[in-house]
Amino acid sequence: MPEICAVNYIDHVGVAVNDIRAALDFFAANFGAPDAEVVQLDDQAVRACLIEIGQTRLELLEPLTPESAVGRFIERRGEGLHHLALNVDDIAGKLKILSANGLSLIDSEPRHGLSGAIGFVHPRSVFGVLTELVEN
Amino acid sequence: MPEICAVNYIDHVGVAVNDIRAALDFFAANFGAPDAEVVQLDDQAVRACLIEIGQTRLELLEPLTPESAVGRFIERRGEGLHHLALNVDDIAGKLKILSANGLSLIDSEPRHGLSGAIGFVHPRSVFGVLTELVEN
Repeated sequence: MPEICAVNYIDHVGVAVNDIRAALDFFAANFGAPDAEVVQLDDQAVRACLIEIGQTRLELLEPLTPESAVGRFIERRGEGLHHLALNVDDIAGKLKILSANGLSLIDSEPRHGLSGAIGFVHPRSVFGVLTELVEN
Repeated sequence: MPEICAVNYIDHVGVAVNDIRAALDFFAANFGAPDAEVVQLDDQAVRACLIEIGQTRLELLEPLTPESAVGRFIERRGEGLHHLALNVDDIAGKLKILSANGLSLIDSEPRHGLSGAIGFVHPRSVFGVLTELVEN
Protein backbone atom coordinates (compact mmCIF):
# COMPACT_ATOMS: atom_id res chain seq x y z
CA MET A 1 0.00 0.00 0.00
CA PRO A 2 1.26 3.50 -0.78
CA GLU A 3 1.59 6.02 2.04
CA ILE A 4 -1.20 8.61 2.14
CA CYS A 5 -0.84 12.36 1.57
CA ALA A 6 -3.69 13.33 3.92
CA VAL A 7 -5.60 16.40 2.72
CA ASN A 8 -7.29 18.89 5.06
CA TYR A 9 -9.63 20.41 2.45
CA ILE A 10 -9.60 22.00 -1.00
CA ASP A 11 -7.60 25.20 -0.44
CA HIS A 12 -8.51 26.97 -3.67
CA VAL A 13 -9.41 26.58 -7.32
CA GLY A 14 -7.26 28.46 -9.83
CA VAL A 15 -8.79 30.17 -12.87
CA ALA A 16 -6.70 31.58 -15.74
CA VAL A 17 -8.02 34.89 -17.13
CA ASN A 18 -6.76 37.52 -19.55
CA ASP A 19 -7.76 40.51 -17.39
CA ILE A 20 -7.76 39.96 -13.63
CA ARG A 21 -9.36 43.33 -12.89
CA ALA A 22 -12.25 42.61 -15.25
CA ALA A 23 -12.69 39.16 -13.72
CA LEU A 24 -12.65 40.49 -10.14
CA ASP A 25 -15.22 43.14 -11.05
CA PHE A 26 -17.39 40.48 -12.73
CA PHE A 27 -17.35 38.15 -9.71
CA ALA A 28 -18.11 41.08 -7.39
CA ALA A 29 -20.98 42.46 -9.49
CA ASN A 30 -22.62 39.12 -10.30
CA PHE A 31 -21.76 36.83 -7.36
CA GLY A 32 -21.10 39.31 -4.53
CA ALA A 33 -17.46 38.29 -4.25
CA PRO A 34 -15.43 40.50 -1.90
CA ASP A 35 -12.62 42.53 -3.43
CA ALA A 36 -9.18 40.96 -3.26
CA GLU A 37 -5.65 42.32 -3.40
CA VAL A 38 -3.95 41.71 -6.74
CA VAL A 39 -0.31 40.72 -6.28
CA GLN A 40 2.35 40.38 -8.98
CA LEU A 41 4.35 37.13 -8.71
CA ASP A 42 7.38 37.58 -10.96
CA ASP A 43 8.67 34.00 -10.60
CA GLN A 44 5.35 32.62 -11.90
CA ALA A 45 4.90 35.52 -14.36
CA VAL A 46 1.36 36.20 -13.18
CA ARG A 47 -0.77 38.75 -11.42
CA ALA A 48 -2.90 36.83 -8.93
CA CYS A 49 -5.50 37.26 -6.22
CA LEU A 50 -7.42 35.03 -3.84
CA ILE A 51 -11.16 35.66 -3.49
CA GLU A 52 -12.45 34.63 -0.05
CA ILE A 53 -15.66 32.73 -0.68
CA GLY A 54 -15.91 30.09 2.06
CA GLN A 55 -13.30 27.49 3.04
CA THR A 56 -12.22 27.01 -0.58
CA ARG A 57 -11.10 30.22 -2.25
CA LEU A 58 -11.09 31.23 -5.90
CA GLU A 59 -7.67 32.19 -7.25
CA LEU A 60 -7.53 34.34 -10.37
CA LEU A 61 -4.35 34.27 -12.47
CA GLU A 62 -3.51 36.72 -15.26
CA PRO A 63 -0.35 35.95 -17.25
CA LEU A 64 2.30 38.69 -17.46
CA THR A 65 3.51 37.38 -20.83
CA PRO A 66 2.14 35.02 -23.50
CA GLU A 67 5.23 32.78 -23.02
CA SER A 68 4.55 32.18 -19.31
CA ALA A 69 2.98 28.89 -18.16
CA VAL A 70 -0.41 30.54 -17.65
CA GLY A 71 -0.07 32.47 -20.91
CA ARG A 72 0.57 29.24 -22.81
CA PHE A 73 -2.35 27.58 -21.01
CA ILE A 74 -4.72 30.33 -22.23
CA GLU A 75 -3.19 30.24 -25.74
CA ARG A 76 -3.80 26.47 -25.89
CA ARG A 77 -7.14 26.05 -24.09
CA GLY A 78 -8.57 29.52 -23.54
CA GLU A 79 -9.48 31.10 -20.22
CA GLY A 80 -10.91 28.77 -17.58
CA LEU A 81 -10.25 26.34 -14.76
CA HIS A 82 -6.48 25.97 -14.35
CA HIS A 83 -5.58 24.05 -11.18
CA LEU A 84 -6.89 22.47 -7.97
CA ALA A 85 -5.09 23.22 -4.69
CA LEU A 86 -5.23 20.85 -1.72
CA ASN A 87 -4.49 22.10 1.79
CA VAL A 88 -2.03 19.89 3.69
CA ASP A 89 0.22 19.91 6.74
CA ASP A 90 3.95 19.19 6.36
CA ILE A 91 4.05 19.91 2.65
CA ALA A 92 7.70 18.83 2.29
CA GLY A 93 6.86 15.39 3.69
CA LYS A 94 3.69 15.17 1.59
CA LEU A 95 5.59 15.89 -1.65
CA LYS A 96 8.02 13.08 -0.70
CA ILE A 97 5.10 10.67 -0.15
CA LEU A 98 3.56 11.48 -3.54
CA SER A 99 6.93 11.09 -5.25
CA ALA A 100 7.47 7.72 -3.51
CA ASN A 101 3.96 6.70 -4.67
CA GLY A 102 5.13 7.27 -8.24
CA LEU A 103 3.42 10.60 -9.01
CA SER A 104 5.31 13.06 -11.24
CA LEU A 105 6.09 16.24 -9.32
CA ILE A 106 6.69 19.62 -10.91
CA ASP A 107 8.16 20.81 -7.56
CA SER A 108 10.09 18.22 -5.57
CA GLU A 109 10.62 20.81 -2.81
CA PRO A 110 8.10 23.40 -1.57
CA ARG A 111 8.49 26.96 -2.79
CA HIS A 112 6.87 30.23 -1.78
CA GLY A 113 3.53 31.09 -3.39
CA LEU A 114 0.53 33.35 -2.85
CA SER A 115 -1.08 30.90 -0.39
CA GLY A 116 2.06 29.99 1.59
CA ALA A 117 4.34 27.04 0.85
CA ILE A 118 3.27 25.39 -2.40
CA GLY A 119 4.27 22.51 -4.67
CA PHE A 120 2.74 21.32 -7.93
CA VAL A 121 2.04 17.76 -9.08
CA HIS A 122 1.97 17.12 -12.84
CA PRO A 123 -1.53 16.74 -14.31
CA ARG A 124 -0.54 13.47 -16.05
CA SER A 125 -0.39 11.88 -12.56
CA VAL A 126 -3.82 13.17 -11.41
CA PHE A 127 -6.30 12.45 -14.24
CA GLY A 128 -5.39 15.62 -16.11
CA VAL A 129 -5.77 17.88 -13.07
CA LEU A 130 -2.85 20.22 -12.38
CA THR A 131 -2.74 19.70 -8.60
CA GLU A 132 -1.11 22.01 -6.08
CA LEU A 133 -0.31 21.21 -2.46
CA VAL A 134 -0.54 24.21 -0.13
CA GLU A 135 0.58 24.69 3.47
CA ASN A 136 -0.63 28.04 4.79
CA MET B 1 -25.87 48.06 -11.08
CA PRO B 2 -26.80 44.44 -11.75
CA GLU B 3 -28.53 42.45 -9.03
CA ILE B 4 -26.23 40.05 -7.17
CA CYS B 5 -26.45 36.25 -7.17
CA ALA B 6 -25.09 35.85 -3.63
CA VAL B 7 -22.98 32.71 -3.21
CA ASN B 8 -22.67 30.76 0.05
CA TYR B 9 -19.47 28.90 -0.84
CA ILE B 10 -17.95 26.71 -3.54
CA ASP B 11 -20.11 23.59 -3.42
CA HIS B 12 -17.89 21.30 -5.46
CA VAL B 13 -15.37 21.07 -8.27
CA GLY B 14 -16.15 18.67 -11.12
CA VAL B 15 -13.48 16.51 -12.72
CA ALA B 16 -14.04 14.51 -15.93
CA VAL B 17 -12.37 11.08 -15.91
CA ASN B 18 -12.46 8.01 -18.13
CA ASP B 19 -12.73 5.49 -15.27
CA ILE B 20 -14.47 6.71 -12.11
CA ARG B 21 -13.56 3.60 -10.10
CA ALA B 22 -9.86 4.00 -10.93
CA ALA B 23 -10.04 7.71 -10.02
CA LEU B 24 -11.82 7.04 -6.69
CA ASP B 25 -9.24 4.39 -5.81
CA PHE B 26 -6.44 6.78 -6.74
CA PHE B 27 -7.77 9.63 -4.55
CA ALA B 28 -8.30 7.20 -1.66
CA ALA B 29 -4.86 5.59 -1.89
CA ASN B 30 -2.90 8.80 -2.42
CA PHE B 31 -4.92 11.54 -0.69
CA GLY B 32 -6.92 9.58 1.90
CA ALA B 33 -10.23 10.48 0.27
CA PRO B 34 -13.23 8.62 1.75
CA ASP B 35 -15.06 6.24 -0.54
CA ALA B 36 -18.13 7.64 -2.28
CA GLU B 37 -21.22 6.14 -3.83
CA VAL B 38 -21.13 6.05 -7.62
CA VAL B 39 -24.52 6.95 -9.10
CA GLN B 40 -25.58 6.68 -12.73
CA LEU B 41 -27.32 9.82 -14.03
CA ASP B 42 -28.95 8.85 -17.30
CA ASP B 43 -30.12 12.35 -18.23
CA GLN B 44 -26.52 13.64 -18.05
CA ALA B 45 -25.11 10.38 -19.46
CA VAL B 46 -22.54 10.07 -16.65
CA ARG B 47 -21.62 7.99 -13.69
CA ALA B 48 -20.82 10.41 -10.87
CA CYS B 49 -19.82 10.61 -7.23
CA LEU B 50 -19.13 13.31 -4.67
CA ILE B 51 -16.02 12.92 -2.52
CA GLU B 52 -16.45 14.60 0.87
CA ILE B 53 -13.25 16.51 1.51
CA GLY B 54 -14.19 19.60 3.52
CA GLN B 55 -16.82 22.22 2.67
CA THR B 56 -16.06 21.98 -1.05
CA ARG B 57 -16.40 18.47 -2.46
CA LEU B 58 -14.75 16.83 -5.43
CA GLU B 59 -17.18 15.48 -8.02
CA LEU B 60 -15.95 12.81 -10.41
CA LEU B 61 -17.76 12.35 -13.72
CA GLU B 62 -17.31 9.40 -16.08
CA PRO B 63 -19.13 9.65 -19.43
CA LEU B 64 -21.49 6.82 -20.35
CA THR B 65 -20.92 7.43 -24.06
CA PRO B 66 -18.34 9.33 -26.16
CA GLU B 67 -21.18 11.47 -27.59
CA SER B 68 -22.32 12.77 -24.18
CA ALA B 69 -21.32 16.28 -23.05
CA VAL B 70 -18.64 14.91 -20.71
CA GLY B 71 -17.50 12.41 -23.35
CA ARG B 72 -17.02 15.20 -25.87
CA PHE B 73 -15.22 17.30 -23.25
CA ILE B 74 -12.68 14.48 -22.70
CA GLU B 75 -12.38 13.88 -26.45
CA ARG B 76 -11.59 17.57 -26.99
CA ARG B 77 -9.48 18.46 -23.93
CA GLY B 78 -8.61 15.22 -22.17
CA GLU B 79 -9.46 14.31 -18.60
CA GLY B 80 -9.33 17.14 -16.05
CA LEU B 81 -11.13 20.02 -14.37
CA HIS B 82 -14.62 20.27 -15.83
CA HIS B 83 -16.81 22.70 -13.87
CA LEU B 84 -17.11 24.88 -10.77
CA ALA B 85 -20.26 24.65 -8.64
CA LEU B 86 -21.43 27.53 -6.43
CA ASN B 87 -23.78 26.88 -3.51
CA VAL B 88 -26.73 29.28 -3.42
CA ASP B 89 -30.14 29.71 -1.82
CA ASP B 90 -33.23 30.18 -4.02
CA ILE B 91 -31.59 28.79 -7.16
CA ALA B 92 -34.60 29.63 -9.35
CA GLY B 93 -34.36 33.29 -8.36
CA LYS B 94 -30.58 33.28 -8.76
CA LEU B 95 -30.78 31.91 -12.31
CA LYS B 96 -33.23 34.72 -13.14
CA ILE B 97 -30.81 37.31 -11.73
CA LEU B 98 -27.90 35.99 -13.80
CA SER B 99 -30.06 35.92 -16.92
CA ALA B 100 -31.19 39.50 -16.27
CA ASN B 101 -27.52 40.46 -15.83
CA GLY B 102 -26.89 39.20 -19.36
CA LEU B 103 -25.18 35.88 -18.64
CA SER B 104 -25.91 32.97 -20.99
CA LEU B 105 -27.65 30.17 -19.13
CA ILE B 106 -27.58 26.52 -20.16
CA ASP B 107 -30.49 25.89 -17.76
CA SER B 108 -33.01 28.71 -17.38
CA GLU B 109 -34.88 26.63 -14.79
CA PRO B 110 -33.37 24.41 -12.06
CA ARG B 111 -33.31 20.68 -12.65
CA HIS B 112 -32.48 17.74 -10.43
CA GLY B 113 -28.82 16.74 -10.12
CA LEU B 114 -26.53 14.76 -7.85
CA SER B 115 -26.14 17.69 -5.40
CA GLY B 116 -29.79 18.78 -5.34
CA ALA B 117 -31.33 21.45 -7.56
CA ILE B 118 -28.79 22.55 -10.16
CA GLY B 119 -28.49 24.91 -13.11
CA PHE B 120 -25.57 25.57 -15.44
CA VAL B 121 -24.24 28.89 -16.75
CA HIS B 122 -22.40 28.85 -20.09
CA PRO B 123 -18.62 29.12 -19.79
CA ARG B 124 -18.52 31.97 -22.34
CA SER B 125 -20.21 34.16 -19.68
CA VAL B 126 -17.77 33.26 -16.86
CA PHE B 127 -14.23 33.56 -18.28
CA GLY B 128 -14.28 30.07 -19.74
CA VAL B 129 -15.50 28.42 -16.52
CA LEU B 130 -18.50 26.11 -16.87
CA THR B 131 -20.35 27.30 -13.75
CA GLU B 132 -23.07 25.40 -11.91
CA LEU B 133 -25.43 26.80 -9.31
CA VAL B 134 -26.44 24.29 -6.63
CA GLU B 135 -29.13 24.41 -3.95
CA ASN B 136 -28.84 21.42 -1.62
